[in-house]
Amino acid sequence: MRTDRYEVVPIGIVESPLTDPASAPKQADEGGPAATLVFDDELVDGLADTRPGDEVVLLTWLHHARRDVLRVHPRDDLTRPERGVFSTRSADRPNPIGVHLVRVVAVDGPRVRVHALEAVDGTPIVDVKPVLR
Amino acid sequence: MRTDRYEVVPIGIVESPLTDPASAPKQADEGGPAATLVFDDELVDGLADTRPGDEVVLLTWLHHARRDVLRVHPRDDLTRPERGVFSTRSADRPNPIGVHLVRVVAVDGPRVRVHALEAVDGTPIVDVKPVLR
Repeated sequence: MRTDRYEVVPIGIVESPLTDPASAPKQADEGGPAATLVFDDELVDGLADTRPGDEVVLLTWLHHARRDVLRVHPRDDLTRPERGVFSTRSADRPNPIGVHLVRVVAVDGPRVRVHALEAVDGTPIVDVKPVLR
Repeated sequence: MRTDRYEVVPIGIVESPLTDPASAPKQADEGGPAATLVFDDELVDGLADTRPGDEVVLLTWLHHARRDVLRVHPRDDLTRPERGVFSTRSADRPNPIGVHLVRVVAVDGPRVRVHALEAVDGTPIVDVKPVLR
């Protein structure tokens, strides 16, 4: 029986025209709009070398997700057979962390504009890392 | 002032011959060994469709990391200038979540063998997702 737990402290929040998780695109290449990552002011030093053009891995906490789900219908399509959740990208999963590949288009202090993000407005930001080539 | 917090409940643990974070390779393509992801027994339903050959994104909690760091010397090389942590892959960062691309080589109930992982023995597993193409 595991008893270790770790606390995610969000480092900022997504500003997006998307507001409804049910109707939002499931992946950025399905029509996610541009969005702004608004970092907490006290973390802006961590963005010192983040530049327009960077391709980054954005981690979010999908705060609308259910965490008690181990089998899901892919893409919420009830006509498709259930699959083990770890072979899907479902938001509903034990630790609902979103992994998004995004390109930085502008940086203005704590505000980082990115191209094509499927996360909804108000989604907590967990981390940003460069994509390795 | 943000006050929201989220709790990561590890879903398993990494078994690896790597034991020392300081001497472990920084990225899997720098010599990470094969490793076994040991999932908690009650989550095995979530692995129902995970198969040898799958390429997956593995998320871990880098439990040895410091969380109070916003600038780091890349690759712990003190001769290189400090950079904002969000433009590096440093383990030390506000939410120390590791993102690893790994290939599944075998699945045996809750034990998933993967090729080339730089995480050390005992690292908590947070999530596994398929790589999108």
